[in-house]
Amino acid sequence: MKTLVHETWGDHTVLVARSEASEVGSVGIVSSKVVDVATFQRPLELVLGNHLDHVAVTYETYGQLNAKGTNAILICHALTGSAHAAGRHESQQLPGWWDPLVGPGKAIDTNHYYVISSNVLGGCYGTTGPSSINPSTGKPYGLEFPRYTIRDMVEVQARLVKHLGVTSLATVIGGSMGAMQVLEWAVMYPELVRSIIPIASGSRHSAWAIGLNEVARRAITADPTWQGGNYQLASQPESGLGLARAIAMLSYRSFDSLEAKFGRERVSASRELLDVGFEIESYLAYQGVKLVERFDANTYLYITRAMDDFDLSEGRGRLGDVLEGVNIPTLVMGISSDVLYPENEQKALVDALPQAHYARINSPHGHDAFLIEFPQIAVHVRSFLERAK
Amino acid sequence: MKTLVHETWGDHTVLVARSEASEVGSVGIVSSKVVDVATFQRPLELVLGNHLDHVAVTYETYGQLNAKGTNAILICHALTGSAHAAGRHESQQLPGWWDPLVGPGKAIDTNHYYVISSNVLGGCYGTTGPSSINPSTGKPYGLEFPRYTIRDMVEVQARLVKHLGVTSLATVIGGSMGAMQVLEWAVMYPELVRSIIPIASGSRHSAWAIGLNEVARRAITADPTWQGGNYQLASQPESGLGLARAIAMLSYRSFDSLEAKFGRERVSASRELLDVGFEIESYLAYQGVKLVERFDANTYLYITRAMDDFDLSEGRGRLGDVLEGVNIPTLVMGISSDVLYPENEQKALVDALPQAHYARINSPHGHDAFLIEFPQIAVHVRSFLERAK
Repeated sequence: MKTLVHETWGDHTVLVARSEASEVGSVGIVSSKVVDVATFQRPLELVLGNHLDHVAVTYETYGQLNAKGTNAILICHALTGSAHAAGRHESQQLPGWWDPLVGPGKAIDTNHYYVISSNVLGGCYGTTGPSSINPSTGKPYGLEFPRYTIRDMVEVQARLVKHLGVTSLATVIGGSMGAMQVLEWAVMYPELVRSIIPIASGSRHSAWAIGLNEVARRAITADPTWQGGNYQLASQPESGLGLARAIAMLSYRSFDSLEAKFGRERVSASRELLDVGFEIESYLAYQGVKLVERFDANTYLYITRAMDDFDLSEGRGRLGDVLEGVNIPTLVMGISSDVLYPENEQKALVDALPQAHYARINSPHGHDAFLIEFPQIAVHVRSFLERAK
Repeated sequence: MKTLVHETWGDHTVLVARSEASEVGSVGIVSSKVVDVATFQRPLELVLGNHLDHVAVTYETYGQLNAKGTNAILICHALTGSAHAAGRHESQQLPGWWDPLVGPGKAIDTNHYYVISSNVLGGCYGTTGPSSINPSTGKPYGLEFPRYTIRDMVEVQARLVKHLGVTSLATVIGGSMGAMQVLEWAVMYPELVRSIIPIASGSRHSAWAIGLNEVARRAITADPTWQGGNYQLASQPESGLGLARAIAMLSYRSFDSLEAKFGRERVSASRELLDVGFEIESYLAYQGVKLVERFDANTYLYITRAMDDFDLSEGRGRLGDVLEGVNIPTLVMGISSDVLYPENEQKALVDALPQAHYARINSPHGHDAFLIEFPQIAVHVRSFLERAK
């Protein structure tokens, strides 16, 4: 028996179909684990040069791996995401960022699948990155951290996955920067991946998306408290990182969603030049403050650079040939109102990938719909996984 | 006889239909004139309170006013525009920003019309504004300048127009913020306006557009050299104003135009974290530098606020009723790829205005197409003006 209930995700309340009792549920309280994939395997050589002797990877897993190691699904997160994709975290009881999709009886069904989610290389949620302590100096790496790419992120994930005993991934799934990892997985480890689900990305970062990342970076580096990257972690460039987030948030939403939600509503009757007058201004400021509380400015610079560098064809010849080689079942999802990674990018993927089909997420919410429109995503993921079995 | 020639406008080279000899030409060398519309008439009372005893208005005129004062056309400029719409300015030989549209034999034909173009109230191209000297202190107004609105800009234009002997305007035309003035003209001075041509705006500023202006303002005010607005004019907050412009430029173009022009081309092989690597980054930086050379940061704050405040219905009852009252021939133009003022805004205007028809500018260039797609604009303006005669 199913019931429709309202659930709140971030600042959105959505209607979600819930089944009763044990059929559909939460993975419950989860905890993070950490493993060093450089020490116990080998130093991590980075694509753009340099290497790391230690790479602590923070990850979560949900469900049980089968004896052959073949029922695993890897979830890849976006720019400011973390390993905490599902359940409630033991430390703060926060729900995972894709909890409505991952759990017993849910679209990514932990009764059947062993689900892995890790913080990316260079992230600031427990995996080694610019905000980690540099063992050779005892201080945060900051700008001493080497440049890394989406391919390096995937290399780290591959080491983790093998460490966990996985011999074959049923699918690799992710949205936005997560989808870039998904595509790299299919090219870098075809022997390990049986299917992929890239959501709301293209095969390489566009001029438009690079431009938006660049102005966000400039907002951070223009903040005097950034201090050339040498700030204390406790005293971040809050103004710059907050502004970077505000700029990005506009590109994550859409004209129509902001108009419907805020229109010309005011939080204040003040007409002073620099007062926050309109609700949209207050919203953007609030989104900035929220990110500053949970994310590191230098990490933002590095990860956006990794996104801008993303080009599936780089060093591999023609893009069409590279995509032609990804000969596994593929579900490409796009969002009808996405202005950052418009649907044409996903449709181009579908046209070039041998076994791809396309599923549109109809949403007014823009790019962020992959973190909002859970019922639609669930329907497509569930049916794709059932067919791919 | 017509010939097609390439002309360069800003960083665009466009194909323009040119007629030979005297049929179509330039208005030639033009000079600016200045008049104080407060001293010789009365102090300017501002909508949001305060008044100005002196309002110097810089303007240009092209063509000759007829004896009855009825053959005038008023051109209204956008955010960073000036009075210099046509011809070549005597000081630097710079062509006007709408020169391909204004001149003998052109769409706005100075053989028939007396064309007026003035810098808006609060601008920084010769009309009294935040960068002007405050007569009571001998220093630039800066943030001491009173807030002003689109309606105040129109009031100043109306005083100018009457001063010039105009008894009736054949049309008022403008794009972007210019279109906001156009719409206010029709509501504030129906007895003076026989037709209007608003291009690429809506009837009120959207949450999306307000949000984009707000992040641009924050880029300026976050720059320490802004100094609470008390900078010396010779030492502007260059970084902040440049970043504001870069953010705005993205919204003035489109995904497709930036992809076609820049794609993933690099200006440098460097993969250093903060080096300018991609051409799009270099372009955005360059656009910022160019604006810093010609525009004032405080003025940017004030004018964007005036745009955000724009709501044709404010204090006038229902928007539909206000638009219903604008019962004159109206040509509404929109741009197919405009993400800042999307076509739906213009179509809503057409639906609500009693005598409006719609003309689409087909362009990949986004909002800036009203400064690029001259041949298309010319065709529509010419036929509208001929019908309205």
